[in-house]
Amino acid sequence: MAEKITPRADDYSKWYLDIVKEAQLADHSDVRGCMVIKPNGFALWEKMQRALDGLFKATGHVNAYFPLFIPMSYLAKEEEMAEGFAKECAVVTHHRLKAEKGRGLYVDPEAKLEEPLVVRPTSETIIWKTYKNWIQSYRDLPVLVNQWCNVVRWEMRTRLFLRTAEFLWQEGHTAHATREEAEREAHMILMDCYRRFAEEWMAMPVLTGPKSEGQKFPGAIYTLCIEAMMQDGKALQAGTSHFLGQNFAKAFDVQFLNDKQQLEYAWATSWGVSTRLIGGLIMTHSDDQGLVCPPRLAPTHVVICPLGKNEEERRASESAAQNLAAALRSLPREEFFGYEPIAVKIDTMYEKQPGFRFAEYELRGVPVRVEIGPKDLEKQACVIGRRDRPGKEGKQFGVPLSSAAAVIRDWLVDIQQSLFNRAREYRDRLTRTVDRWEEFQQEIERGGFLLAHWDGTRETEDRIQEATGATIRCIPFDQPEERGSCILSGRPSTRRVAFARAY
Amino acid sequence: MAEKITPRADDYSKWYLDIVKEAQLADHSDVRGCMVIKPNGFALWEKMQRALDGLFKATGHVNAYFPLFIPMSYLAKEEEMAEGFAKECAVVTHHRLKAEKGRGLYVDPEAKLEEPLVVRPTSETIIWKTYKNWIQSYRDLPVLVNQWCNVVRWEMRTRLFLRTAEFLWQEGHTAHATREEAEREAHMILMDCYRRFAEEWMAMPVLTGPKSEGQKFPGAIYTLCIEAMMQDGKALQAGTSHFLGQNFAKAFDVQFLNDKQQLEYAWATSWGVSTRLIGGLIMTHSDDQGLVCPPRLAPTHVVICPLGKNEEERRASESAAQNLAAALRSLPREEFFGYEPIAVKIDTMYEKQPGFRFAEYELRGVPVRVEIGPKDLEKQACVIGRRDRPGKEGKQFGVPLSSAAAVIRDWLVDIQQSLFNRAREYRDRLTRTVDRWEEFQQEIERGGFLLAHWDGTRETEDRIQEATGATIRCIPFDQPEERGSCILSGRPSTRRVAFARAY
Repeated sequence: MAEKITPRADDYSKWYLDIVKEAQLADHSDVRGCMVIKPNGFALWEKMQRALDGLFKATGHVNAYFPLFIPMSYLAKEEEMAEGFAKECAVVTHHRLKAEKGRGLYVDPEAKLEEPLVVRPTSETIIWKTYKNWIQSYRDLPVLVNQWCNVVRWEMRTRLFLRTAEFLWQEGHTAHATREEAEREAHMILMDCYRRFAEEWMAMPVLTGPKSEGQKFPGAIYTLCIEAMMQDGKALQAGTSHFLGQNFAKAFDVQFLNDKQQLEYAWATSWGVSTRLIGGLIMTHSDDQGLVCPPRLAPTHVVICPLGKNEEERRASESAAQNLAAALRSLPREEFFGYEPIAVKIDTMYEKQPGFRFAEYELRGVPVRVEIGPKDLEKQACVIGRRDRPGKEGKQFGVPLSSAAAVIRDWLVDIQQSLFNRAREYRDRLTRTVDRWEEFQQEIERGGFLLAHWDGTRETEDRIQEATGATIRCIPFDQPEERGSCILSGRPSTRRVAFARAY
Repeated sequence: MAEKITPRADDYSKWYLDIVKEAQLADHSDVRGCMVIKPNGFALWEKMQRALDGLFKATGHVNAYFPLFIPMSYLAKEEEMAEGFAKECAVVTHHRLKAEKGRGLYVDPEAKLEEPLVVRPTSETIIWKTYKNWIQSYRDLPVLVNQWCNVVRWEMRTRLFLRTAEFLWQEGHTAHATREEAEREAHMILMDCYRRFAEEWMAMPVLTGPKSEGQKFPGAIYTLCIEAMMQDGKALQAGTSHFLGQNFAKAFDVQFLNDKQQLEYAWATSWGVSTRLIGGLIMTHSDDQGLVCPPRLAPTHVVICPLGKNEEERRASESAAQNLAAALRSLPREEFFGYEPIAVKIDTMYEKQPGFRFAEYELRGVPVRVEIGPKDLEKQACVIGRRDRPGKEGKQFGVPLSSAAAVIRDWLVDIQQSLFNRAREYRDRLTRTVDRWEEFQQEIERGGFLLAHWDGTRETEDRIQEATGATIRCIPFDQPEERGSCILSGRPSTRRVAFARAY
């Protein structure tokens, strides 16, 4: 099995695509830049959605749905938006095809739209156009709405999950009566929803903080982000939360009567995470054996492989497997598992070699694997293996069947924590403080986050990127104030920022 | 409140739109034919999705996601498909806008796509193109995949939820090794998923059976449907399940090696329900006071309105309301409620008149309303009202607070059943057996299903439609075989079919 996967050390990029392909997560489609998310990949996305949706709802948000199409004139209303997205979008210009003998199907020139429609690259414009009807008074505020949907950006270079022309995401769009409340919302989403989800569900540690001016969202006053570190030393922007000020309220004339009966423009935030997170999950935890999936997001938590050379042995093993599965499924529903039963699969592909069967589930990232064979049954026991520690090290032999369900439940919780600890140690090891430009240039080649002083100008940021390929990923909230001088210009700085090469 | 809603007797169509608007379920957008599904409406859709998704998964299906865009040439591959959908589709022809001073944004003529892309009206073609890569051997079968997504059909006349250019739906697409298995799948989905969902969750009784040739899906061998009856006597097609034979396998060359090592084309089904169901739910149960929502799909099950004229009274009422809410939320999780806690809202809008508050929740369709005021508290009791019986009739006074949670839980189950019974009685009353053509012409004016004999020809079906506006909605499975003569042509027939005017 493992030979299907190129080792990370040989070719990281190929390793990634091998995992996506062999764990059957996604595939390229014939439609340029669009992917097919296969059942194994979509099951991951469903678990992510469920958890994130719970976090959004627990913080007072509701879901809604807005049109896929955005009239071209809406995009034009917000200048930075138009500049940021016009260059790469899918444009609907006609509403009919026609068929003709010999010629086949063609676009009917008589069915041209009066105004071209853009397939949404993000929905600020159409949503704020709608909010104009929803918001008249401060009593209508805040509006705390989220949408799960597909969006399209006509990317030239695509990579499965990480960058595709069409992708799935959620986009939150909130409207508030005051600047303070909107800023609080943008921060709350970042820290209490995105950071929590990344760390507690994905087991993926993240830096949190604002982007620099050069990296912010078109139309935002500022952009906050969670930024993760992949195993190859490249950073991944995993989620963003934007404080939009009154830009969209002004562009779409969304004014409300405040409690003093004065007209004011509403204050806005928007925030999103996408199927890109699946790429982040893969690149944070997986190994040369295949996918490694944190238990809280695993579509299947436990696979049980009954073993046996003949019908009789198999029947006995299978019966023990059924009992264990039932015991696992009937454990009390816990918050950790989203109040759902532990998901157990019994594999009975006896026609395949046991080694092949085990390797298959290793490849797919199932967190816990159980083997029950005739020798185990003699002792009323089983063998349990944990995916985060492949090989003998992660195996426990002779686990009594009577206590196996409880042991496995505890292992699942432990695996979640171990994955997070390992990823954080790795990230911390790859995060270095750098004070000299020559050192910066050398160190950036080794990957990871470089914490360095920066003079706060766009010009310096651009020069550093040109020279090294590194960008400012984040101005971390948790960096202390300290006097220093910019790594490139030598000008004074009060705080270190995190540089890295990035996806 | 009720004056916001046009009575059904005055103008049924306006009544429907009033409910959609006043219960804040959806709104037209500025984008032609596209709706905005507002939070109250989307919450309904989420409950529907959750329940349907559970039924699909319990019957072995998994979710996946396929591209939004379909190359024009794919549509051309299946002739009936092309004919059926080419006339009304959104066509993407360009991938870039350009901005120019003075001219603003315009479609960049240099960014024309080599092949136009159609925004999916349904995904058979792109999915079967993909299945070619997935299916080589009988061991790869069956493929049991479902997708939740948006689709676009350029409808000229739209009505919120019932017919919109963009709508949300699920589309199942399965591939099988044998005709029998595929036919079994199409029937199973209809009866065990769609019929069950309509009747047990939506409390909406449905006829089940095949469509006539004239009403089937383009590209299907036959189409099975669930067909519901609305309060105005018009039928609503609520879900369809198609047996597609080998049509798509042949169009996209999906062959597999069977267990005798022979190449065969795969057998297909597809099936879907959409946000149209929300329209069906509204038109099945609602009344002149507003939305009526079956408890299993209600986003909020119970609203508690504490009452009081002063601070002290309100504090006491609110404290009792909090206790009751906690008792309701901590009831054991039941399958009936999707293993989720009962959803309770406490309304503290004291600045509004109690009558206004009650009417608001009546309008929104919350199944159970609880009032707790000072007089109730003297007796440690509350007043409970059920939405399916507006006014005094549905109220119970002096319910002890100590047993209120249990009473309410039982009411919710009872309301679900009562709504179904009422809808079925209504539907049955509007279903008549008709044997003479003059009678048919008169009776069709009164609405409802007319069970009549039909000679099985497309020609007769078309003539009946021209003469009366009625179509064959369904050839019900449960109609007995009986000899008869066609209502129009007089030719022999062996079975009655259900005619109606329809949405």
